[in-house]
Amino acid sequence: MRYVVIMAGGSGTRLWPLSRSGTPKQFLPLIPAQDARVSLLHLAVERARTVVPPERIWIVTGAAYLDMVRELAPEIPESNLLGEPVGRDSLNAAAWPAAVLAARDPDAVIAQLTADHLIQPVDSFARTLAAAFELAESGPKLVTLGVPPTRPHTGYGYIRRGAALSDTAFEVLGFTEKPPLALAQQYLASGEYWWNAGMFCWRAAAFLDLVAQLRPECAQLVLELAENPGQLADIFPRLPKISVDYAVMEPAAAQGMVCCVRLDAQWRDVGGYAALGNVLPQLGGNAASGRVVADAQGNVIINDDPDAVVAVAGVTGLVVVRTPTATLVVPADQAERVKALAEQVAVQAPGFE
Amino acid sequence: MRYVVIMAGGSGTRLWPLSRSGTPKQFLPLIPAQDARVSLLHLAVERARTVVPPERIWIVTGAAYLDMVRELAPEIPESNLLGEPVGRDSLNAAAWPAAVLAARDPDAVIAQLTADHLIQPVDSFARTLAAAFELAESGPKLVTLGVPPTRPHTGYGYIRRGAALSDTAFEVLGFTEKPPLALAQQYLASGEYWWNAGMFCWRAAAFLDLVAQLRPECAQLVLELAENPGQLADIFPRLPKISVDYAVMEPAAAQGMVCCVRLDAQWRDVGGYAALGNVLPQLGGNAASGRVVADAQGNVIINDDPDAVVAVAGVTGLVVVRTPTATLVVPADQAERVKALAEQVAVQAPGFE
Repeated sequence: MRYVVIMAGGSGTRLWPLSRSGTPKQFLPLIPAQDARVSLLHLAVERARTVVPPERIWIVTGAAYLDMVRELAPEIPESNLLGEPVGRDSLNAAAWPAAVLAARDPDAVIAQLTADHLIQPVDSFARTLAAAFELAESGPKLVTLGVPPTRPHTGYGYIRRGAALSDTAFEVLGFTEKPPLALAQQYLASGEYWWNAGMFCWRAAAFLDLVAQLRPECAQLVLELAENPGQLADIFPRLPKISVDYAVMEPAAAQGMVCCVRLDAQWRDVGGYAALGNVLPQLGGNAASGRVVADAQGNVIINDDPDAVVAVAGVTGLVVVRTPTATLVVPADQAERVKALAEQVAVQAPGFE
Repeated sequence: MRYVVIMAGGSGTRLWPLSRSGTPKQFLPLIPAQDARVSLLHLAVERARTVVPPERIWIVTGAAYLDMVRELAPEIPESNLLGEPVGRDSLNAAAWPAAVLAARDPDAVIAQLTADHLIQPVDSFARTLAAAFELAESGPKLVTLGVPPTRPHTGYGYIRRGAALSDTAFEVLGFTEKPPLALAQQYLASGEYWWNAGMFCWRAAAFLDLVAQLRPECAQLVLELAENPGQLADIFPRLPKISVDYAVMEPAAAQGMVCCVRLDAQWRDVGGYAALGNVLPQLGGNAASGRVVADAQGNVIINDDPDAVVAVAGVTGLVVVRTPTATLVVPADQAERVKALAEQVAVQAPGFE
């Protein structure tokens, strides 16, 4: 049977102060949709529902966020919500649900999807997922979703493609994380590389076999946890904190055990302000949201405070954000400084981080 | 007898959103003092009290601001507060109290002072005022306070000095408003020019004589008003809207009727954000006030919202202001755009101007 697991962990400090330690970005109503704004998690559940019913959608998140998930995705059964008592990175956000599902359904095939991407149109994504499921069902290999690059982005991981399996599916020869610009330009020019979308599809049993081979301590603990869910608080913290890319996908690719499917949709990481600006409405040359008055151009201006106005004149290339408890100003091309700034706020103005 | 009249009118849109239409800058607790912050009006009254008792301090302001004045300056008798029902510029803010005081005390000598300047130290200013009173009492001439320039400022008015009357007092040959840079540089190099501080000292009767000669309709109306204070709402709107510099000081100087006294104190106009930045505490290379976290330098950052933090990274030369109802971002060297921006807010986000 087919399942979708949505990874909705992460604290989202790159979008501080919109996301605060108690409210990560995937739960915030950031994304304009029709006449309201919706959360990335809401959109992720909507996408998942195009391929499986709610009973076969699982969500992995921080235990502290379970109430928010219940509220944003009331159609998902309570038993399908997995709350991590501590963050243990993406290997365990994949291995834990794989172990739980394999125990119930030996033929479980899982699409392991992210919550913090914006993917449009939804029906193209559904076709991509159908192709990924078919490929994963046809053998033991792990399937990863790839995006043909349109520019030499240095912030993404890249997939090196091998032999074609079809028009839109290929063997994977290896992965490269965030290459320097010159290398990213080579990748783009060669046509052999795709962006790694960080979304996967696999038979639960095949994935667990690889985990058992590559990270036996992890496999043992998640199988133990699947059998004894009451021991979550005891077992989970003992898991190694490691990413699924580094722990499984890279070594599995070296064994010829990974293939990829082309993601036929517009795919955007909205993890930072520059990317978020791309999805906001335009206001006189700025990407803007909320009550904003601008005599300026080329800025990302977000006002999430219903009781205030944000007024900007004579600046360009800035991110200006106002929430009820914080104002942020940072150049858009230095938006990676937001994370460190939020940490500085935690020290210098505790309670406002 | 000596009197001080403090001019505390003006709407202060250059400091929006700190000053809003209901709360001009002179009433805001902007200025760090000891362990609190005080208003410019508070400081102006403090200065006045070094030369006259509260009973001889008068305040001219907008009628709408009288309650704020009563609260900030409770020591000033109610009868000494003159509330203008409509703005009629500085000629009438001088002529009205002169007419009122001359009617009570034919020998009244008035120091006509501003509320929106920062002047330190206070005792030096008191000595300057004493010299100005003596000069005004010695004859019929109008006395203006001048500041030896330290740079070719193009935003101030200049006094052209004539013959010396003492080490610190001179005849005045004329006035120039806001000269272009090249001219301001000539003024600075010549040593013949002082900045016009916009503060004056005169015998009430001598001033009214000049007003009667130069603006007879104004003199007639303010004398009528002094006799019939109950007709304020009827008489005041009929006064011409004109500045005391243009209506009286410039033509009086041409008649040889003006002299000047050197203001022996640090004198700063804090009418805009660039100037306000000069009086705020330093925080890691920024002028900052309130709960601010900065990984940036060379900015003016003012947080007047007790329930929030303002966090800034990677920018320089900016003015960033947060109040409970607005956030402002503008380059410091374009701070003159604030006035127009506040007007844009009044149209696009009414209620937040």
